[in-house]
Amino acid sequence: MVQIPNTPAPTKSPAPRPVPTSADVARLAGVSRATVSYVLNNAGAVRISEPTRLRVRQAAEELGYVPHAAARALRAGHSRVVLMPTLPAPAGPLYSQFVHDFQGALARLEYTVVQYGATGLCGDDAARAWAELRPVAVLVPTPGIGPEGVAVLKRSGARAVVTLSPAPVEGAHALRLDHADVGRSAAAHLYARGRRRIGVVVPEGRGMEVFSAPRLHGSREALSGTGATVTELPLAYSEESAAALAARWSGLGLDAVFAYNDEYAMLLMRALQETGVRVPEDVAVVGADDLVLGRLLRPRLSTVRIALPSGRELASLVDRAVRNPAAAPEPHEPFGATVVHRESS
Amino acid sequence: MVQIPNTPAPTKSPAPRPVPTSADVARLAGVSRATVSYVLNNAGAVRISEPTRLRVRQAAEELGYVPHAAARALRAGHSRVVLMPTLPAPAGPLYSQFVHDFQGALARLEYTVVQYGATGLCGDDAARAWAELRPVAVLVPTPGIGPEGVAVLKRSGARAVVTLSPAPVEGAHALRLDHADVGRSAAAHLYARGRRRIGVVVPEGRGMEVFSAPRLHGSREALSGTGATVTELPLAYSEESAAALAARWSGLGLDAVFAYNDEYAMLLMRALQETGVRVPEDVAVVGADDLVLGRLLRPRLSTVRIALPSGRELASLVDRAVRNPAAAPEPHEPFGATVVHRESS
Repeated sequence: MVQIPNTPAPTKSPAPRPVPTSADVARLAGVSRATVSYVLNNAGAVRISEPTRLRVRQAAEELGYVPHAAARALRAGHSRVVLMPTLPAPAGPLYSQFVHDFQGALARLEYTVVQYGATGLCGDDAARAWAELRPVAVLVPTPGIGPEGVAVLKRSGARAVVTLSPAPVEGAHALRLDHADVGRSAAAHLYARGRRRIGVVVPEGRGMEVFSAPRLHGSREALSGTGATVTELPLAYSEESAAALAARWSGLGLDAVFAYNDEYAMLLMRALQETGVRVPEDVAVVGADDLVLGRLLRPRLSTVRIALPSGRELASLVDRAVRNPAAAPEPHEPFGATVVHRESS
Repeated sequence: MVQIPNTPAPTKSPAPRPVPTSADVARLAGVSRATVSYVLNNAGAVRISEPTRLRVRQAAEELGYVPHAAARALRAGHSRVVLMPTLPAPAGPLYSQFVHDFQGALARLEYTVVQYGATGLCGDDAARAWAELRPVAVLVPTPGIGPEGVAVLKRSGARAVVTLSPAPVEGAHALRLDHADVGRSAAAHLYARGRRRIGVVVPEGRGMEVFSAPRLHGSREALSGTGATVTELPLAYSEESAAALAARWSGLGLDAVFAYNDEYAMLLMRALQETGVRVPEDVAVVGADDLVLGRLLRPRLSTVRIALPSGRELASLVDRAVRNPAAAPEPHEPFGATVVHRESS
């Protein structure tokens, strides 16, 4: 540890000043608090002279006053905040891009997207924590929230709740996305390619179960009654873990593997190749999410592509729902999962 | 579009109920609003009988009342919200993992991390928008905010502002991270390997300049006066764009490339190999960020590793700063960038 230049010495560090309020601005400008509020919130309906507006703005600047979104939300009864809980695991490339697009589209509609960090709370308890921020809309990208949680959010002022989950939730705009479909598609594809002893890679470590459990379950479901077997294969996201799995591969007697997503598929495929296992001759490999990087290994990786809504479509749905909170949830087709067959299967 | 089951028919859709307030809870429980506040905020210092507590909790549950974080923040003068602006581009794997760890560590300290969506505002104007949420601390992961922005945040009640940028910012806890170091390290490595005509891949499309511009600049700086040349190579994140660059490769006369990060390096390396260019014999390739997937191609990708702070260290720094807002910013060494030499260079 080395003292960095320009760091003020401890003795010179200023004590925090009190936070300026709109009352301070009003006092300095010689106007009422209501006038300050009208001017700084650009309430067009109220007539205030230009000199007064100027005086208020100068006073606000001099004091360093910024309007309080919380106070404004309390007055208006709602905010422009669209809340999304963050995922329980680091976001993958597919989801990061989706959030980025959604955020951009909502910003153009003058909403601010706030991603709310995971707090350890689940389902409707989590909904109560989100409600404390008084969002005008909430997008819940994982299953878990129920009608009770939706009701809590609506009572707290949210005009729209949008869920992305296998089944619609009462009171919410339901976008149906079932990760079991991903597993079903992958397993059916491998079965159609003549494979009968199928491993399913499940990420090791907590956080991803909400996606990986239905993907595993869907694989089992698709093969149920066919005589084909499903073997669960826990795998950490590291070369070492993949090498360890590859080392015990011959003892597993598998002829195919559906890996959680393309990243895990790439990791395992490379480790298998390093130990002399041939892909797809000895083992067929299928990933999921159709990542750009999945096309770089050889053989090219087969994958399951998920038809996520575009960020723009979803932003416009949120905006419609906010403008018309009494409208019934819009009907939507479930998002499908389709296999992109390349060379690895 | 198909009507989904369980969607209530439009006529049955309920009109939004008014949002219950703590006054409603007080009325129903037959107590004062202050009592409601004491009970629901678990203010331990105030003695309230168990039957009264129970009555308040039952009334709150019956009405579906949730405390208002905004109101609570207004009363307390600050929140438990730690705000981070989101990056101007979709987060890569390295950053997603860092945010996830930081969030988890702060949650254990009973803070909530809120990632604030990009609004098109820059620098100190952006700081003003963040201030409206009255965060107790702000972590700014890109350069741009100045002493003015830090002052605005502090006046709005933020007890700590932490910046991750090349130079310390007055009033903020400065973690120094200079992306130019990444470019410097990569270029110096390629020069030491005997390369003299060096291409630098820069992601095409807006959003990443805040990282890519200093990486390019650092490369130029490291080679200045050596006689080696630097050629800027814009590249979109797609196989097509990489194939197009590879197709005109021989005309460029380059013997090395530093790609923005490992993802771009993998994309370009594969495209070059497809057109018969040998790596590293004809072209040495270096990426950055040391991603797990970068080790899967052959030859194994050389990369620049950045020693980011751990999420836990950073969370504990934020917590110390919040508890002791008058303390001087802590001194920290700049985070270094070191080349991991594998097979591609």
